[in-house]
Amino acid sequence: MSNFGVTELRLVRPFEVAFREARSAVGAADLLARAKEFSQVADAVSDCVLVVGTTAGRNREIAQPLRPLPEAAGYIRRKLARGKVALLFGSEKTGLSNDELSHCHWLAHVPTQESHVSMNLGQAVAVCLYELARRGNVAATARDGLESRAAEMERINLLLMEVLQVSGYLKPDASFPARARIRQLVRRMNLQPKDAEVWLGMLRQILWKMRQAE
Amino acid sequence: MSNFGVTELRLVRPFEVAFREARSAVGAADLLARAKEFSQVADAVSDCVLVVGTTAGRNREIAQPLRPLPEAAGYIRRKLARGKVALLFGSEKTGLSNDELSHCHWLAHVPTQESHVSMNLGQAVAVCLYELARRGNVAATARDGLESRAAEMERINLLLMEVLQVSGYLKPDASFPARARIRQLVRRMNLQPKDAEVWLGMLRQILWKMRQAE
Repeated sequence: MSNFGVTELRLVRPFEVAFREARSAVGAADLLARAKEFSQVADAVSDCVLVVGTTAGRNREIAQPLRPLPEAAGYIRRKLARGKVALLFGSEKTGLSNDELSHCHWLAHVPTQESHVSMNLGQAVAVCLYELARRGNVAATARDGLESRAAEMERINLLLMEVLQVSGYLKPDASFPARARIRQLVRRMNLQPKDAEVWLGMLRQILWKMRQAE
Repeated sequence: MSNFGVTELRLVRPFEVAFREARSAVGAADLLARAKEFSQVADAVSDCVLVVGTTAGRNREIAQPLRPLPEAAGYIRRKLARGKVALLFGSEKTGLSNDELSHCHWLAHVPTQESHVSMNLGQAVAVCLYELARRGNVAATARDGLESRAAEMERINLLLMEVLQVSGYLKPDASFPARARIRQLVRRMNLQPKDAEVWLGMLRQILWKMRQAE
């Protein structure tokens, strides 16, 4: 990260031992000292206008767009002018879970040999950040407020979920794939901030109305 | 290497412990089992038509061309159609020594932040091979014999060195920079194989003649 000018490391439930060992890495002590820990993906990406998951492209339950890294980098660079972008990496052993993937707008994969698609985590991160920095500095000055941040999308998602459950469309004990499909539906809305506010207002009103009827 | 379809690993005086630990890497056991060990760089690159060194670009005694990786990859891909290309990496701690660098036709560097140019070895290798494979398979079928291999260049280099020493141009105890400059001079000749033979013949003849006069 430090090599390629990416400065903000966020960790969701890091494996304590490995995390503390990493603190000794040469030249990046400051970056690691400032790393933030979160207990949930939703919290870690809450201020991001785009969340891109990384995957070797196998065994996925959710059919999100999957872009090869060189193409993905172009999309990400354009979004960086509008706000923070989260690049989400899974654990070394298992990659991103389906629940973690459901927080992503779309997915990126490093083109590799068919016979060996799974990459070492540190190498995958280096390759992704190299591609992003390949045509110049990625630490662009983000202008806030032009697009809805993940936090707003998640608020809409949770409210819509509640609405759908109260309405009976979704069972209270709805399975993960059903809930993930809703989250993805909201991600695809690609809302501007003012539209997001309108949606939140509409959903709150719908929820209030339905509760009156109970 | 395995991720990007590069199959031939050659090690010069590997640090035994780390090398054997690496044998457990997932998915690349075969590649590691076939890795060859050498005691000298010259032997390791002897059948290569191009030797490219990797460097963070600091503290070099020899002024070789230094190309950023995206540009370097283009040159390397074109050469791969003519024979084997060696991509030379130094040790994790010190990088390539000046002696090791002197075996290279030119050098490549990964564009990084000025404030943090030194990369982790495994990540540097992954980034370089990713860039090479970025536009498709690097495992092109090499056609042999179209350009002089490093072994022929090194034979010319050694013979020329002997000629220069016997001639008095170069002292028998010539310093490293002087010897490195000669090696680079030979590299820059960029000889075709039949020219290399001619040069070897000429140098042998010169040497014989000079020895007659001693």
